Amino acid sequence: MNAISIIPLPGIPQVHPGDDLTSFILAAIDRENVGVENGDVFVICQKVISKAEGAIIDLKTITPSPFSEQIAGLWEKDPRMVEVVLCESSRIVRMKNGVIITETKHGWVCANSGVDASNSYGDDIVIVLPKDPDASARRIRDEVKARRNATIAVIITDTFGRPWRDGLVEFTLGVAGIDPLLDLRGQSDLQGRELHHTVVAVADELAAAAGLLMEKDAAMPVVLIRGYRYAQVEGESKKLIRPAEADLFR
Amino acid sequence: MNAISIIPLPGIPQVHPGDDLTSFILAAIDRENVGVENGDVFVICQKVISKAEGAIIDLKTITPSPFSEQIAGLWEKDPRMVEVVLCESSRIVRMKNGVIITETKHGWVCANSGVDASNSYGDDIVIVLPKDPDASARRIRDEVKARRNATIAVIITDTFGRPWRDGLVEFTLGVAGIDPLLDLRGQSDLQGRELHHTVVAVADELAAAAGLLMEKDAAMPVVLIRGYRYAQVEGESKKLIRPAEADLFR
Repeated sequence: MNAISIIPLPGIPQVHPGDDLTSFILAAIDRENVGVENGDVFVICQKVISKAEGAIIDLKTITPSPFSEQIAGLWEKDPRMVEVVLCESSRIVRMKNGVIITETKHGWVCANSGVDASNSYGDDIVIVLPKDPDASARRIRDEVKARRNATIAVIITDTFGRPWRDGLVEFTLGVAGIDPLLDLRGQSDLQGRELHHTVVAVADELAAAAGLLMEKDAAMPVVLIRGYRYAQVEGESKKLIRPAEADLFR
Repeated sequence: MNAISIIPLPGIPQVHPGDDLTSFILAAIDRENVGVENGDVFVICQKVISKAEGAIIDLKTITPSPFSEQIAGLWEKDPRMVEVVLCESSRIVRMKNGVIITETKHGWVCANSGVDASNSYGDDIVIVLPKDPDASARRIRDEVKARRNATIAVIITDTFGRPWRDGLVEFTLGVAGIDPLLDLRGQSDLQGRELHHTVVAVADELAAAAGLLMEKDAAMPVVLIRGYRYAQVEGESKKLIRPAEADLFR
């Protein structure tokens, strides 16, 4: 088994709606002189995907509902922000102490429906999650195939908190070219010693690994992982969503 | 910023109570010819720590309580196993559909108090979590310092499920030589463009990264991570436990 490399790709510029993100990533790879190899995994923070796709909302265009006004009043939040968070959700999982945990329309459970209010463009601009992160991942994978003739996987991530454990970690929102789950049930190890009984969320482990470089520097929204061996399949991120009937914490 | 390497350490033999695990790890490092460098992070699966420390229970010695008999009867479980799971816990978080989610005495929330019934030694032998994983981590760190004169960090991990998301991921149980949380609040990035507002659970990201190699092969309980830059501090894993008052899912 070979080592896995987590390779930083610095220097990706600010992304704006309509930008060709793939060309930014390939330019960063060229600057680092690491090339693109078959089997590489591009791990990409959702924020640059959302920006490139225009998944951006100007709060000045939002009229909050009376419910949003009421929630916002209780916790000194911006009622327009609350309105966006509710509109981006399919369900409220918890609402307490000013924290709103929702299930997004994709099925991810996270704070504030993943709506990001950090002032990238200005005080009233918020960034929402990409509409279809798997489609975004497939587009980038296909563009890399067309431009560099390499078969890669793409994982789109966001930074989430967790129940019970402090600190944020990078999680998967979208995939292309890799199965987000690795099913080891029934397999024995190389020595034939022990049976595995597990399904591993490898996409989330790849996301977390990339997070080691991403989170220290907001200017590094893309990380290259090389040397991780996986089956090349289409993949779909919704396999990572635990079915409601098997979930004790809905 | 440099690349991070996740280096496999194959060939670690079955571990038994009293074994010198550090010598097994150093022998694997020598076989791989990678040496030990200052700043290396050894990520070690709890199972080999528990085995070396004798954190092993023979179910033949367990007399289940009436409550354990009752729970076991409902779900066709071994009442002696249920008894061990309850004894290893400080609190039951959920008990439903035959799944028992507990809070361990350390404060970790996980299935079955982390008790592992895979038949490593025989049908009636179960492995429990190490009593004090930080102390276990410190011991290995100190032994590596004494034997190789290198200052490393140690992370002890276990494989847990998560609410809402399918698939298992490697999580931190114990640390030595590294702060499990990286506090970026108030920092700007290299370009001075954007403020971070996050505390990152870097120990869990390192654990997950190691999981990419560990989980595929039960014979690889130790993985070496090289090139991750962190502050050398004593560290304590309980910083990863979200305070009850900030936890919406207890």
